[in-house]
This record gives sequence, C-alpha cells and structure tokens, in this order.
Amino acid sequence: MKSYLTMSKEELQTEIAALKKEYSKFQSMELELDMSRGKPCKDQLDLSMGLMDALTSGADLCCEDGTDCRNYGVLGGIEEAKVLIGDMMENNPDNILIYGNSSLNVMYDQISRSFTHGVMGNTPWCQLDKVKWLCPVPGYDRHFGITEYFGIEMIPVPMSTEGPDMDTIEKLVAEDEAIKGIWCVPKYSNPQGYSYSDETVRRFARLKPAAKDFRIYWDNAYGIHHLYEDHQDYLIEILAECKRAGNPDIVYKFASTSKITFPGSGIAALATSPNNLEDIKNQLKHQTIGYDKVNQLRHVRFFKDIHGMVEHMKKHAGIIRPKFEAVEEIFEENLQGLDIACWTKPNGGYFISFDGLDGTAKEIVDRAKKAGVKLTPAGSTWPYHKDPHDSNIRIAPTYPPLEDLRTASRLFTVCVRLVSAQHLLDNYDERANITAPEQ
Amino acid sequence: MKSYLTMSKEELQTEIAALKKEYSKFQSMELELDMSRGKPCKDQLDLSMGLMDALTSGADLCCEDGTDCRNYGVLGGIEEAKVLIGDMMENNPDNILIYGNSSLNVMYDQISRSFTHGVMGNTPWCQLDKVKWLCPVPGYDRHFGITEYFGIEMIPVPMSTEGPDMDTIEKLVAEDEAIKGIWCVPKYSNPQGYSYSDETVRRFARLKPAAKDFRIYWDNAYGIHHLYEDHQDYLIEILAECKRAGNPDIVYKFASTSKITFPGSGIAALATSPNNLEDIKNQLKHQTIGYDKVNQLRHVRFFKDIHGMVEHMKKHAGIIRPKFEAVEEIFEENLQGLDIACWTKPNGGYFISFDGLDGTAKEIVDRAKKAGVKLTPAGSTWPYHKDPHDSNIRIAPTYPPLEDLRTASRLFTVCVRLVSAQHLLDNYDERANITAPEQ
Repeated sequence: MKSYLTMSKEELQTEIAALKKEYSKFQSMELELDMSRGKPCKDQLDLSMGLMDALTSGADLCCEDGTDCRNYGVLGGIEEAKVLIGDMMENNPDNILIYGNSSLNVMYDQISRSFTHGVMGNTPWCQLDKVKWLCPVPGYDRHFGITEYFGIEMIPVPMSTEGPDMDTIEKLVAEDEAIKGIWCVPKYSNPQGYSYSDETVRRFARLKPAAKDFRIYWDNAYGIHHLYEDHQDYLIEILAECKRAGNPDIVYKFASTSKITFPGSGIAALATSPNNLEDIKNQLKHQTIGYDKVNQLRHVRFFKDIHGMVEHMKKHAGIIRPKFEAVEEIFEENLQGLDIACWTKPNGGYFISFDGLDGTAKEIVDRAKKAGVKLTPAGSTWPYHKDPHDSNIRIAPTYPPLEDLRTASRLFTVCVRLVSAQHLLDNYDERANITAPEQ
Repeated sequence: MKSYLTMSKEELQTEIAALKKEYSKFQSMELELDMSRGKPCKDQLDLSMGLMDALTSGADLCCEDGTDCRNYGVLGGIEEAKVLIGDMMENNPDNILIYGNSSLNVMYDQISRSFTHGVMGNTPWCQLDKVKWLCPVPGYDRHFGITEYFGIEMIPVPMSTEGPDMDTIEKLVAEDEAIKGIWCVPKYSNPQGYSYSDETVRRFARLKPAAKDFRIYWDNAYGIHHLYEDHQDYLIEILAECKRAGNPDIVYKFASTSKITFPGSGIAALATSPNNLEDIKNQLKHQTIGYDKVNQLRHVRFFKDIHGMVEHMKKHAGIIRPKFEAVEEIFEENLQGLDIACWTKPNGGYFISFDGLDGTAKEIVDRAKKAGVKLTPAGSTWPYHKDPHDSNIRIAPTYPPLEDLRTASRLFTVCVRLVSAQHLLDNYDERANITAPEQ
C-alpha cells in the first residue's frame, strides 16, 4: 500500500471518500463492542469454574498446620497460599503477604499509609510540601489514578522496548528527595507488552534515591501470562536482585490471580523484604483481622501447585492468542506501509499499544465509538489523561468474542485511516513535519 | 454467701487459704482455654458449610441483571447482595455499599480517607492540629486501636444500660470542633451487650456537632445476633431517624456477615446517606475496581433472603445461648452476694462484661492465665488499654466447647475471689472506701 505521507491532496481526497463509505457500512451494523479494558472473556472465566468445586460442604477447611480457614486470624495469609503464590511470583513464601481480592487496593493502601504514617519511620508524606512520582509512559491508567488522587506530581519517563529510560530515572531519583516512587509493570507491560531487559532490572536494583522512603512499585501483573509456549519473555526477579545489590528494601512487588482465575474474586499478594514486611504488618494489624482465608484455600486446592497454575495459563493463552493474532493480522493487512501507525506485538499480557500520527488518537477513539466500538479513552495511558502527542491508544483484545474482535479491529483500522488521511489533508502544507509513528 | 466486704481479717485469711487450694487444683489440670476473643466456635462454623455448595462449577454465576460476577466491575456490590444486606441492616438497598470481608477494614478506610482527603469537601484531618474522638467505655478494643493508630485523642464517655451518656456527648460535640467522630456498637454492645434506648438513638440523630465532618461510626455488628427468641432487644434504625431529624449525613453504619457465616470470609457493608455514598464512591473508585462479587452471590444463593438468614441465626443462638447461660450460672453460684463483682446478662451479641473491685482486673486476668485460661487483657475495653479503675474484664463465651467453658468460668470465679479477698486483706484499713461493683 502507498504511504499516506507521500500522497497528493487528490489522492488523499479519493482515499477519504472511499473510507467514509466503508465507515458508514460499519455504522449501519449497529455494533456494540468493548475493547476498552483488560478483561478476560467468558471462555477464560469458564476455565476456572472448577474453583467453585474446590471446596464443598464435605471438605475439611483446615490448613496443613491445623488453622481453621473459616475463623478469624492469620493476618499475612495461610502458609499453603504463600507457597503457591511464592512459586508464582518467584519469591520465598516468607517474603509474601496474601491480601484480599485486589492488588490495586494493596498499592492504594501502601500509598495511603505512606501519607498517614510514613515508610519505615520516615516522615509521613502528608507532612511534606511535595511528593513526586515517576511514571513510565505509556502506562496503566489506574496506577496514575491513585497517584493523581493523592495529589502526587507525576513525572512521565519514556519507555522503550528495554523498559523505562534508566538514565533519566537514575538522575531524577538521585537529585530529588521529593520523588518517592515509580510505577512499573515490568513484564508484558501495560499497554505495550514490553518486558524490562536484564540491564534495566539490574539498574533498578541499584538505584540510589535521595529519598530513603523511595520505593519501586513493581506491579508484576502479568508474570505468568504468556501468549506463546515457544517464545516467552524472561524477567530477572527483582527482590533477589535488590538483595544482591545491597538494596533489599527498595521494592514492593505486587501480583494477583485476577487474570488467572476470576478478576475481583481472586487473591492478591505483596512480596518484599523482611524490614518492609514488618513495617507493613505493624500497620495492617490495625486495619483488619485478616483476609479471606477460605478463598486462599480454595485457590490452593484448585491449582494444587504452580504446575497446575502453569497448565491453567496455557489454556488462557489458547483462548486469547488467536485474538492477539487476529488484531495483528488485521492491523498489518490494513495499516502496514501507510506510515500512519505502529503497534506492538507482545509475547504476553493483555494489551497491544497502538500509536497513530500525532494529534489523531482522540479522534480515532471518537470515530470508533460513534460506530459502536468502545476503546480505552485516548490519553488514558498518560498521567492526568494527557498524552502530549495525542497518539497512543491501548488496544485490549481479550474480552470480545473472536469474530466481534475482527469486526472491531477492521472498523478501528478504517477509523485510523480516515482520521489520518483527513489530518494529513488538513495539514497538507506542514506535511514535511509529520513523520511516521514509531514505538 | 457472706459479703467479702464485711469479712474480718481472719475470715479473709481463711477464705484465701481455701481458694488457693482450689486454684492449685485448676493449675494441676494444665488447661489451655481461650475466652479472649469474640470468635464463633466450630459448631457455629459448621452451620455455614452449605455456603460451600451454594455455587458449583455447574452454576450460573450471573446476577439477575446479567452481570457476570466472575469478571471485573460493579464497585458498590451486586444488587441482590444489597437487597439481602439491606434487609439485614434495615436499610434501603440504595443506601448500601457492599465491601470485602471485613467491616473493621471499612471503618479503617473511612478514617484513613478522612485524614488524606477529608469528609465531603472539608479539610483533610492530616492538616488539622488535633483530631479527637468520643469512645463510650467500656468498648471494643479494635475500634480504639484504629483511632489510636491515627494519633486521634480518645475521650472516654461512660456507658449505661441506655447507651452512652448523651448529656456529655451533646455538650462535647457542640463545643469542640476537633471532635470528628464517636465509636458506637449500638446493639448488644461490645462488651456489655447493652442496646441503646430509643431516647439515646433519637438524641444521636439530633446531635448538633460543631464539626461539619463529625460522623457517628455506628457499628451494628450484632444487629441480628439474638440469644433468645422470646426476649430480644430492639433498636431504632439510625439512618431513618437521622433523615427524619434533618441530619441525614451524620452517620456511617457498618455491618458484616462475619458472625453469621465465616469470619474473614463473609461480606461487609456500609449504609449511609446519598451524599456520603457519593463522597465515598468518588474515592473508592481509585482504590479498587470492585470487591468479591462471587462471594456476594454465594451468600445470596445460600441464604436466599432475610428469612433464611434469621432462621440461620436461630441455629447460632441454639449453640451459644447455653454457653452464655453456663457462664451466668457459674458466676451467680460462685460470686453472687460477695459484693466483689457484677456482670451483664445480655440478650444477644458475643460478650459479657464483668466488673470486679477497683484495682483487681489485671491480677484476675494474670491469675487465670497462669492456670491456662486466656482472657481479653484487662484494660482492653478502654482507650490506650488504660482502664482507670482496673476493674473491667470482657468475657467471650462463644469459642470454647461448653464443658471447657464451664471449667474456665469456674476457674475465673476462683481467681476473682482469690484476688479480691487478697486485695481486701491488703487494704483492710481502707475497706470503708471500697464499694461493691455496679454496672
């Protein structure tokens, strides 16, 4: 296909006319499709229905150590759940706290507690004039939502295929004591699906922040969420690396079973150093008597061990891999060579990151919406919902059924082409300044 | 039996000698009993095993409105859970938010959020010099634990059989803008088992606090936890009363199924005014995507409706009523008429409140511990664990098996008599100043 960047005004006009016809065909289909959130689809949820039979009225709901999971107690989670989640997170069970159903809530609580009580004896953040946070971009909107809610100044840091720009991060954290944390989705990142390189992880573990209470918020949400058996990303385990680097307390690592069993009805966990664990538990004991141990036991009995979980994840991959491939195929078919878009091809996780021409993302999302396809709002992948390039769109292929997804993806590419062609026509004289998007 | 207060030195010495013998008999039994916490016993937990079969792998896990409980979403809880819990709390489902497994956590979050973000647009408490809280005493140690953790100055307010002293409360909240809340367990109070009188509730609803962000923390933990079918306490519903009084936003009401199904694996809820709900939801959306809907649905399917829950509570009563009666019987048998103790005889809830002579509670608890019976530490029922009279002990009869409970209760009365007799002997010359305890 011919690059839109080299098209004449007339060619663009012809293209636009053809695309408008195509677009109105989609409109007449009265679609109602949702590609906005990283939600598992029904088939994926069905994979975990056995969870409902893992504990029956005839079952013994006691742990191996005799703890009756039905009663109060055991603040940090039952031992067998720590073992299972420890294997999932590649951490020693002793470094793990099992929480309730939401790792986002665990992160929120960490930040909230840092505001009201401080981190390991340091000044509570609510007593500071300014708290700042590093935000690799594009990133996860709900992360940014928490820091925004707490009035934390968010500083974008560019991402590459290797992870966030470590030169910038090293410099900023060393200089500015107000910087207290960084959001990371280190494996199959949200939204690009990138995994941090070995060097990136090593440099994270060796950060020398000015703030003693600086913590890396390492949200390993997609640690075992591979799409392929034969090409998987590997990530250096951060806790071990921090310990080796003599920097054991610098990281909180989060994970959950939300996209393994049922989102909202799974178990979340935090892995961190003994010092951090002690600090957290001393707080947590005022907040709750304990989390849902029955559900912890349910997960343990269902999976039995990490092998059970890995086999389970293969079934997830079997369902969502064709969806990722369908999107990629349609994008290639309809957008390749036009010089108006690029997109990532992740080996795991829940998203594809799409970049269009600068100044087109909002309009593309609006166009899609008017034809019945809901996308994550443009800007969501940036702090304060402000993408300075207005170019990035997060594509979430998992939720719609495959055929719907194909339709939605086709419509999406029509929207991209239409909006881009119009944009190039409107800015024809400045065309020399417009360059093809690159991840 | 003869009052200890009228005994001569010699009589007390004889009594002490006899009691020491009795005490050493208990010591030789090497008991290991726990009357310290309000925990359901195994038989009670067994009542809810049907919960484990309420959802099976063959079940449809969708709500009546089509919401798939297995996936993300629905921040405030599923509609059928709101209806069930609404009936339990005597509130309109529209006034209810369903949370996770712990109402204590909900209360903690309310206070934490008030510190970081403020209540309905008022100044966040972390920016105030001083925050104060009213604490009816004796009260619930975990309530006091939260306010202590946040550095809130706790002001004790005396309880009577009618509830807390409203004259004091009305005066204090009207005068002092730093007072932001009060802990209430209005029905079958922890630890006395008192229920607030109609007048008390009416006066609560009509409080005129100086602080606009003052809230009543109405922890209706034992709303349907009756011991008897024929004599039950009734409590005026506070939200409706506040609305009638033109004071709709003054109360947060909390409840959970912790002592209905499984503690730690149930569902918690908050009922409050539309203004408060909006304020809370605007915050909550940053904290979590939603709570465990599968567990909400599980509870709804298990109980079907409030009638199912009421019938279920009768079974609980059938198990724990004999335990309360055993304690009361043994206390009467061994302590009545001695003028060294008094105790409450609740119609519901989880506790009996015991008062000994001033200055004896700590020693009684220590004595019991040394003979293998664990009680709630003396002082726990007061803010900062400081009972100025050192007289109050919370008795939790539900957890031990009935026979163990009888043994523990007998030992307890021996400890009470021994410590009291010794105390009277040691203070024989000031005996005129020592008066019989009264609730």
